[in-house]
Amino acid sequence: MSSLTSTIASIRPLDAAAMARARARQDDLTKPQGSLGRLEALSIQMAGITGKERPCIRDKAVIVMAGDHGVAREGVSAYPAEVTPQMVLNFLRGGAAINVLARHVGARVTVVDMGVASDIPPQPGLVIRKVAYGTQSLRSGPAMTREQALQAVEAGIEVLEAELARGLDIVATGDMGIGNTTPSSAIVAAVTGLPVAQVTGRGTGIDDGRLAQKVAVIEEGLRVNRPNPADGLDVLAKVGGFEIGGIAGVILGAAAHRMPVVVDGFISTAGAVIAALLAPGAKDYMISGHKSVEIGHWAMLQYLGLVPLVDLDLRLGEGTGAVLGMGLVEAACKILDEMATFSSAGVSTAEG
Amino acid sequence: MSSLTSTIASIRPLDAAAMARARARQDDLTKPQGSLGRLEALSIQMAGITGKERPCIRDKAVIVMAGDHGVAREGVSAYPAEVTPQMVLNFLRGGAAINVLARHVGARVTVVDMGVASDIPPQPGLVIRKVAYGTQSLRSGPAMTREQALQAVEAGIEVLEAELARGLDIVATGDMGIGNTTPSSAIVAAVTGLPVAQVTGRGTGIDDGRLAQKVAVIEEGLRVNRPNPADGLDVLAKVGGFEIGGIAGVILGAAAHRMPVVVDGFISTAGAVIAALLAPGAKDYMISGHKSVEIGHWAMLQYLGLVPLVDLDLRLGEGTGAVLGMGLVEAACKILDEMATFSSAGVSTAEG
Repeated sequence: MSSLTSTIASIRPLDAAAMARARARQDDLTKPQGSLGRLEALSIQMAGITGKERPCIRDKAVIVMAGDHGVAREGVSAYPAEVTPQMVLNFLRGGAAINVLARHVGARVTVVDMGVASDIPPQPGLVIRKVAYGTQSLRSGPAMTREQALQAVEAGIEVLEAELARGLDIVATGDMGIGNTTPSSAIVAAVTGLPVAQVTGRGTGIDDGRLAQKVAVIEEGLRVNRPNPADGLDVLAKVGGFEIGGIAGVILGAAAHRMPVVVDGFISTAGAVIAALLAPGAKDYMISGHKSVEIGHWAMLQYLGLVPLVDLDLRLGEGTGAVLGMGLVEAACKILDEMATFSSAGVSTAEG
Repeated sequence: MSSLTSTIASIRPLDAAAMARARARQDDLTKPQGSLGRLEALSIQMAGITGKERPCIRDKAVIVMAGDHGVAREGVSAYPAEVTPQMVLNFLRGGAAINVLARHVGARVTVVDMGVASDIPPQPGLVIRKVAYGTQSLRSGPAMTREQALQAVEAGIEVLEAELARGLDIVATGDMGIGNTTPSSAIVAAVTGLPVAQVTGRGTGIDDGRLAQKVAVIEEGLRVNRPNPADGLDVLAKVGGFEIGGIAGVILGAAAHRMPVVVDGFISTAGAVIAALLAPGAKDYMISGHKSVEIGHWAMLQYLGLVPLVDLDLRLGEGTGAVLGMGLVEAACKILDEMATFSSAGVSTAEG
């Protein structure tokens, strides 16, 4: 049995009994019932995920999956592909936005080379799970083979399990890969059937001409490849990316191990869509960290039934929106764990 | 010259030169320009407030203003008025939601008795600036005298200045007072001219009958009192509350001392409306922490030109939404201060 098959088989529904106990505790805390809105709902989801009435978060990690894309040669991005390894080195030196925000919320950063087009020297903080030196262009054929797609997802599962062994209470996903909004738009168009132009945005900031080119490239890629929208590995192989497969694996691994996973923006949510195609039960373990500026993100969130925690007009990726959301999940857990109850605090309840 | 007059006179515009330097630095950080959206804008507002290119946040405080309301006797709340002092004691013991969330973001909590209807014994963490034992009911006459309104605002200024002396880089406002959504709705209706029913919500959770009663009480109070919408002290005196006046004072004091102030939800934003009536320049120093469930909050935010940072369906007050926003402001400042620049990190910029 492959790692993917056994992982999918071990995903269970949320723990309804733990959720009921958490709900009862929330309702006895010294505040009007429901007055903390989504923080209350989040704490109860966390109880269901972990099976604990009062889940606590200590160890946090963001896993940043990096990969290159053959389609970047088709003029779909504002940045040259050499930026992917340059930014990986920036992550490893601690100078990128994700490093700053991860430090802010107390999360460690693990960077994974899932398929960068050049060699990055082995060093602390870097996990090398390179499937290949970048994907093929999805414009004229599959981005990768089905075997490579499986390899990418299973690498993500194994990376998650290695992080578990280091101590982990919550994980966030992140991405780096010049050109990777293109496969992400292709995935959401393939899975939802929405017109490509409706789910394709400006990525790092392309002009109207490049946006039209990007839409044309994706439309051609979908016509040529005809991904099967019911088959997650087929969609990933034909129009996806190695880092997107890795993210899907992290999410599936998290769900299998009853670990909450905060999903970042457009690229990470494309990974979440692949994960949900492979195992619909994984959706219960997902928390959407933020709403991206990318126009296709909302369609993905609706497909997954997720409501993002913050909307700060971010469009960077790396896991930046996910770690901000992680801070709010931790706040929600602390509310459930640390607040006084009406009886213990001697506070009167609402009049009958 | 009164403390209020001198405070208003010392409010200056944001520092445009510091903002330009911060904008230039943001644009050289290793990310596509603008890709961190509101975090970038926040960091630049912070530069304008503090006059520093790279503002840093160390000392944080949330000031929770408590007061009682004569109008609570008119059947407008789900909770009895005795809950105000009970919750103040809960704040001082560290068991309330604001304590948990303030600890989460590293902020100290200062509780101020602005006008609770009973005596709360002096103790660490409590500042006693009691204007009176609760307001009069705004239904049949002014909630307080003009002198009391001035006293409440000046107490808020002095509380802010005392916090400054303890070390302060950012302050959040919070409130506690059974019945205080009623004066807050009255303030927004008085100032914007919107119909009372459009800006009056369920507060801590009242049913349809009490909501109708609440609307009728506010309509009667506005008819009887006829507050002058151009005169902040008149509005505060006729339909406000002592804690709302204190919050207005904290905001004015913060603006005068170039200190960012994160405004909480419905009641705190009512205080911000009073502050803006007294000194329109104070608006530049305000950051809206969150969007409240209370239906009148949006009208206040539009009046002030503020866009809230998070929208998590909160309706608790105490400063809970403000401290969550404070955490995001700190993240924004760290981005500006700690990220690598393109040149220092050896990362290629966008293609021309």
